[in-house]
Amino acid sequence: MTITIYGRPGSRARRPLWVARELGLEVTSIEPAPGEIKQPPYRAINPNAKVPALVDDGLTLFESFAQSLYLAKKYGTGRLYPEQIEDEAQVWQWTLWGLNELEKPLTVCLFERIIKPEADRNAALADAAERDLQAPLAVLEKALDGQNWLLGNDFSVADINVAAVAALSRSTKVDLSGFPSVAAWLERALARPAYNG
Amino acid sequence: MTITIYGRPGSRARRPLWVARELGLEVTSIEPAPGEIKQPPYRAINPNAKVPALVDDGLTLFESFAQSLYLAKKYGTGRLYPEQIEDEAQVWQWTLWGLNELEKPLTVCLFERIIKPEADRNAALADAAERDLQAPLAVLEKALDGQNWLLGNDFSVADINVAAVAALSRSTKVDLSGFPSVAAWLERALARPAYNG
Repeated sequence: MTITIYGRPGSRARRPLWVARELGLEVTSIEPAPGEIKQPPYRAINPNAKVPALVDDGLTLFESFAQSLYLAKKYGTGRLYPEQIEDEAQVWQWTLWGLNELEKPLTVCLFERIIKPEADRNAALADAAERDLQAPLAVLEKALDGQNWLLGNDFSVADINVAAVAALSRSTKVDLSGFPSVAAWLERALARPAYNG
Repeated sequence: MTITIYGRPGSRARRPLWVARELGLEVTSIEPAPGEIKQPPYRAINPNAKVPALVDDGLTLFESFAQSLYLAKKYGTGRLYPEQIEDEAQVWQWTLWGLNELEKPLTVCLFERIIKPEADRNAALADAAERDLQAPLAVLEKALDGQNWLLGNDFSVADINVAAVAALSRSTKVDLSGFPSVAAWLERALARPAYNG
């Protein structure tokens, strides 16, 4: 029985796909057409009519981070997923933090610097979002000071979940020069073969 | 050693506090003054200078949902937190879904219907947010059809995390009449003595 992940590798599906590749899992990757995700067959898999969705051995899951946590824990405890509850709580903390603190402003930068047609972009909105990123980036910088990965010495799904969001800082040209530990950590994370698949 | 939770019970601190009360845990509840959370002593606990923060036996955690998951798992596995990975994945899924699908539009309703001074409120923004809620509420309605709680028969931290967000529909007068299973579930969840503390 193989794991099926629905969604383009360049979408949020990258999060569970990255975990799967780190662990060498056999995955069937399906890219539904834009219209398909609104139709009943796909809605039976993800009622939110969004990607990604994951199906594994009778379990169907939506929410990309629930999928990455699930794969990491089920197939990678002791490797990508920690064994102690205190470390596990930190995996959850960083995952939620990446979503709450980084994803929203980086998404604004993405739309206002890249996705929208050039004439429609609002540079001031993107710049304001980059200013909003300074406080969370300072938190991340301090957390990574003197350690390679968010939980310490070992790369984990916490790094995957936060780096998969922070990766948006590259295409959107967010300046990380004031955050050398963040920049080095992101470089290390995104250099992993499993990131690019 | 008692657990300490920083943040007013009416803030996002309600999420871990609700879990703690369900489990009968001894908690010291501290309400930092607005200025205090920007100062170094509080930043040493939560570098994001936000509430809530949780301290338990040497572990310091930010992110309210990481805190509720941690307390539920550490002190309530088999009661508030499921034992099987497939059920655990669904706890994560619903927690993240509540954050991504419900919290943002409900927060818009909160600001535009309640928090802002009456003259500054934008009724059209609130109404648009209520329209955005129709699709996720339909997903929740279907999930709760024929079952009392999100995981089935047993109340869990998934219900706490989603209901703590969905509770905003009450003060903001979001119409749930088209979603009878959601309305009944929310009623059941918020009637629990531990919700109000």
